[in-house]
Amino acid sequence: MSLFGGIECGGTSFVCAIGSGPTDIVSETRFATTTPTETLATAVDFFRSKGSSHTISAVGIASFGPVDLDRSSATYGYITTTPKPGWDGVDVAGYVSRELALPVGWDTDVNATALAEHRWGHAVGLDTFVYITVGTGIGGGALLEGRPMHGLVHPEMGHMRVPRDPNDGYPGCCPYHGDCLEGLACGPAIRQRWDTLPEELPDDHPAWELEARYLAAGLANIVFTLSPRRIVIGGGVMRRSVLLPLVRQGLLAQLANYVQASALVDDIESYVVQPALGDRAGVLGAIALAERL
Amino acid sequence: MSLFGGIECGGTSFVCAIGSGPTDIVSETRFATTTPTETLATAVDFFRSKGSSHTISAVGIASFGPVDLDRSSATYGYITTTPKPGWDGVDVAGYVSRELALPVGWDTDVNATALAEHRWGHAVGLDTFVYITVGTGIGGGALLEGRPMHGLVHPEMGHMRVPRDPNDGYPGCCPYHGDCLEGLACGPAIRQRWDTLPEELPDDHPAWELEARYLAAGLANIVFTLSPRRIVIGGGVMRRSVLLPLVRQGLLAQLANYVQASALVDDIESYVVQPALGDRAGVLGAIALAERL
Repeated sequence: MSLFGGIECGGTSFVCAIGSGPTDIVSETRFATTTPTETLATAVDFFRSKGSSHTISAVGIASFGPVDLDRSSATYGYITTTPKPGWDGVDVAGYVSRELALPVGWDTDVNATALAEHRWGHAVGLDTFVYITVGTGIGGGALLEGRPMHGLVHPEMGHMRVPRDPNDGYPGCCPYHGDCLEGLACGPAIRQRWDTLPEELPDDHPAWELEARYLAAGLANIVFTLSPRRIVIGGGVMRRSVLLPLVRQGLLAQLANYVQASALVDDIESYVVQPALGDRAGVLGAIALAERL
Repeated sequence: MSLFGGIECGGTSFVCAIGSGPTDIVSETRFATTTPTETLATAVDFFRSKGSSHTISAVGIASFGPVDLDRSSATYGYITTTPKPGWDGVDVAGYVSRELALPVGWDTDVNATALAEHRWGHAVGLDTFVYITVGTGIGGGALLEGRPMHGLVHPEMGHMRVPRDPNDGYPGCCPYHGDCLEGLACGPAIRQRWDTLPEELPDDHPAWELEARYLAAGLANIVFTLSPRRIVIGGGVMRRSVLLPLVRQGLLAQLANYVQASALVDDIESYVVQPALGDRAGVLGAIALAERL
């Protein structure tokens, strides 16, 4: 069986792994994201050091963004306008490909995670589906006819505009848009709005109903624009188990019976689901990118 | 050259045409939409009566919706849950295909119009693009990698949720959602909010700035989810020429430099454009559906 390398580039840490799928990871490492030079060298060294025992045929990279996915662009493979200091304009895919002399697959972390869910998780066999993560930020990846969605750039679903709750005086925390979905509903927004760590808010705190209402509006907009066959929603904020049922009911309320698809209306528990792949989803997505080359 | 039949099924009128493109329509007719039995028979009779002079190899149908586009469904080819009396559950594509003994292409009016713009209009060569119409309702069609977008159902972009203007007391007119985009910004919403026919509102009336703000929020959400390479925006409301520049500026304001694609940021006049094909866009889209079979 072919083995692949996967690199998940996160703003806080990198994960590198060698394997062919969730039940076959033969080596794995995680390290802090520091400077681009140091961090990318550590990633490359990991694969080199394993080269004597594990031969890999390609590497996939699932990166925080924004990234350039346009193969005709001079900066294809770069992280572009990230606010993360030092990482703006870094040629991640080119560096890894040159150093390891291997073909490299390249996409956003969320598109790659969507791909992993499609390959091994809750989206196997679904032609159109969306993966959303709600944590420090809100991001979304989409597969259409089984391929990660790219257009002018890549989706930035977290930044869509949604109606404010009329009783919510919190201005939002997105540095670009203030009260976009991310600005109203990411983890830091919950903390700032209630001046409490989210994990200290009890299950019956109104924070969760409000959070679910915003997320449901975002999911409704995704249904109205992309019409996915399923939505997988994960990330740190969604670990609060009271939230998922509220989001499902909120989505049905927002759609108000306009989209009469049985898979949605009659089986919302199977339409909006948690991820299947846990903490390894990102690096598994990177491996799935390599596998597709 | 092959000739194709096209049927544009509108809620008010049907258009049938025979041809191969915008410069080659050899016969065309328009008639009022009455009962399904009568209207569909009139459409079929049009093609039969022309059969001696023009041989067509396939028919495309671009229909008001919602419609069933799922080829594995027992009701593929049907208009489904439309509020239009008598048209709920009508097998449009099956009837036409059986009566004319021809293969039939079938899609929404907006997806078909998007296809026509891709084939002959302002979207030639663009892999991902969105067509929006703002009139009695608001609808959107999308092409991804050149193909009309279908998922669980078809997009219903007009029904996405957008932030209300805090000074806008109008409750919205969507029978399902109240103040969704369509409920706030379709033609009837303008008329009801200002208690004036839109065509009687002067160019400097605040109605147009408010309208542009809502439409720009909708377009921003489309950019954040679908990331199209261009947006074509048409329909009766957009005929007011003061509106398009306001929508363009509003879109840039809503994106707030977050999406740094030159094609958008540096050339908004080419990114958001009017349709190329005018009143025939729908029936040309139907012909394009037939051509693709």
